[in-house]
Amino acid sequence: MKISDIKVDTFRYRTKWFRDYEGHSCAGAERWTTNNMLTIRTDEGAEGYFFAGPSQGVVDSLIKPALLGQDPFFREKIWQRMRRMQKLTNSLPDMLIAHVDCALWDLAGRYLQIPVYKMIGAARTRIPAYASINAGDDIPGGLSSPEDYARFSEELVRDGFKAIKLHTWMSPLPGAPDVKRDVAACAAVREAVGPDITLMLDPHHHYDRIEALYLSREIEKLGFLWIEEPMNEYSMSSYVWLNGKLDMAVLGPENLEGSYQSRAEWVTSGACDMLRGGTGEVGGITPILKLIHLAQAFNLRMEVHGGGPHNMHVLCTMDNGWFYEWGLLHPMVERYRPFPWQKTLYDPIDAEGFVQVPERPGLGDDIDFDYVREHTIDEGAVGRGAPDVY
Amino acid sequence: MKISDIKVDTFRYRTKWFRDYEGHSCAGAERWTTNNMLTIRTDEGAEGYFFAGPSQGVVDSLIKPALLGQDPFFREKIWQRMRRMQKLTNSLPDMLIAHVDCALWDLAGRYLQIPVYKMIGAARTRIPAYASINAGDDIPGGLSSPEDYARFSEELVRDGFKAIKLHTWMSPLPGAPDVKRDVAACAAVREAVGPDITLMLDPHHHYDRIEALYLSREIEKLGFLWIEEPMNEYSMSSYVWLNGKLDMAVLGPENLEGSYQSRAEWVTSGACDMLRGGTGEVGGITPILKLIHLAQAFNLRMEVHGGGPHNMHVLCTMDNGWFYEWGLLHPMVERYRPFPWQKTLYDPIDAEGFVQVPERPGLGDDIDFDYVREHTIDEGAVGRGAPDVY
Repeated sequence: MKISDIKVDTFRYRTKWFRDYEGHSCAGAERWTTNNMLTIRTDEGAEGYFFAGPSQGVVDSLIKPALLGQDPFFREKIWQRMRRMQKLTNSLPDMLIAHVDCALWDLAGRYLQIPVYKMIGAARTRIPAYASINAGDDIPGGLSSPEDYARFSEELVRDGFKAIKLHTWMSPLPGAPDVKRDVAACAAVREAVGPDITLMLDPHHHYDRIEALYLSREIEKLGFLWIEEPMNEYSMSSYVWLNGKLDMAVLGPENLEGSYQSRAEWVTSGACDMLRGGTGEVGGITPILKLIHLAQAFNLRMEVHGGGPHNMHVLCTMDNGWFYEWGLLHPMVERYRPFPWQKTLYDPIDAEGFVQVPERPGLGDDIDFDYVREHTIDEGAVGRGAPDVY
Repeated sequence: MKISDIKVDTFRYRTKWFRDYEGHSCAGAERWTTNNMLTIRTDEGAEGYFFAGPSQGVVDSLIKPALLGQDPFFREKIWQRMRRMQKLTNSLPDMLIAHVDCALWDLAGRYLQIPVYKMIGAARTRIPAYASINAGDDIPGGLSSPEDYARFSEELVRDGFKAIKLHTWMSPLPGAPDVKRDVAACAAVREAVGPDITLMLDPHHHYDRIEALYLSREIEKLGFLWIEEPMNEYSMSSYVWLNGKLDMAVLGPENLEGSYQSRAEWVTSGACDMLRGGTGEVGGITPILKLIHLAQAFNLRMEVHGGGPHNMHVLCTMDNGWFYEWGLLHPMVERYRPFPWQKTLYDPIDAEGFVQVPERPGLGDDIDFDYVREHTIDEGAVGRGAPDVY
């Protein structure tokens, strides 16, 4: 079986999310935006899909030359080939490789009629989830104060969550960042939800060591489980320093390029007490398995960053995983609804605060292909700067 | 789908191999011996097999309680369960867990009708093989002198091999070990095969540091690729010391319990320049993948110890693997023949010195079930010490 075509369908949908210029998600008025559906197809008609994939231009210039004619089951060969291309091709980041790799796993599972987590080797089917609260803002009734976080956290506990992570106020928001305000939000949430709810913090990512240690010590007193990324992660030494001081776990790294290799340095340097890797950030399911296995070799728990089918499946293959990240969540955006291109919600939360992996083949996304087809746009429109598209 | 039965068929076959009391294979007169076929079966009739599995007694007392009623695709869960049993159950070594795990992978591949290496994610289908010459002996025309090794190596090169590993003379053989004689055998082989054949050495495993360094330096001069296990591997410090001195790679560890975790310590301590793990020694395919991934995180090549379907499949998923070990080979034992319970030879060597993974589902062993059935014996006979059985 050979890969015969790779196609990107760019389609429109309505959203209340937008991004600030540092990349943080923000809540706002409903508007049109676009997404991409990546389809990898074989000469036998097998197909695999991934959403938020690369543009057709990137696929044509970079991905097709590496993949067309290959057996789609040669995932390791294909992944290593893409990784080697990164040396001289700056436009092929780990995140983009991830989309291709995830689509190949989806294809394999659909072809064999088995969920991906069972193909890898299953460890569990249910995962405790944590509610991942969006970064702070200045919207009244949104996330503009410690009290807003406290009130919203109470709602999330009523929804079933037993664990909550705060993102606090970050630049470029005026007045942010501010470690004292971060501490006030964390204290207000602890006060609101009581001692039995697990809490974590993901603050502004550009504090210095003094600020990071102050913040860490304060939330350590509040019984937080971890702090993540209070400083730029390219300074591993800063994390070795911080992690050496704290009992509370330092979780990281999130966005570091270099996938499992740069993260192996964090492990052996003692820069984190819980290892981190999102299937997207590290380049897909193929490399995140390497990272999970690395963590297992050193008795480290690992957090899989972000939600979605790809992260859910790998979490179900791990004995050292912990939470599924459910988010981002904001008081003014409807929760627990499928995206418009999904027929059903992938990850409903149950009364015990768990999510359950779907038993559909592949990654198990319940795709509404009619929706995608009916909303597909000329991709060129994106390039021309259509005003409703970010 | 649930595991409904686990069965061991003990059967007789003829062999020219026996083992000395330290466990080394030795060539001798043809005789009867036994092997076990482990069969894991599900309520849907799916089956997976592994040869050289545990006895029915071990299966009944240890394996069945852990596996019966489990979904056979929950390999990670089952493997971690068996690993945890090791803490208090001395009779469940990594090698035995490996047999169960390999049978589960075979079952999964047979059920899905796909070779195991593609289920994991393929990297290649052909692997360079090295001829693994048996340990030395005192049999005229066998492996009793440097000249015997040289002559036999020439034959192996004619057979197609581009790489050869010597096992030299080991205790309890009278006169062994002797580092000078080891060096003489290595020099004779290098002289016989010329500079273009890759050579490696696996000598006596209980030398001290002075002997190990002398031997290493001498074969380094002969252009050997690696030395493996010249000292007891539980002294990791000895290997850190040796590896720090040599340019030639130290390969290890082979038999260390603790699977990927104890091997992670070798990696971070710099005890080896090439990591080692046999699918058998580290507890199966599930954990060797963790070890392969660990090695990849640190730019280490890894040698997969031993031949057979399970090792062949994992080698085909690695970009950092090297050779397939073909052996053991001895001048007085017929080469390149299937075992009596195999219809075809699993790993024929081609003119370029490569082996090719079979495309049959699962581990792809071409099992002669009729042979097994016709030669099955009452397992109790083994326990009673039947004289032809070791």
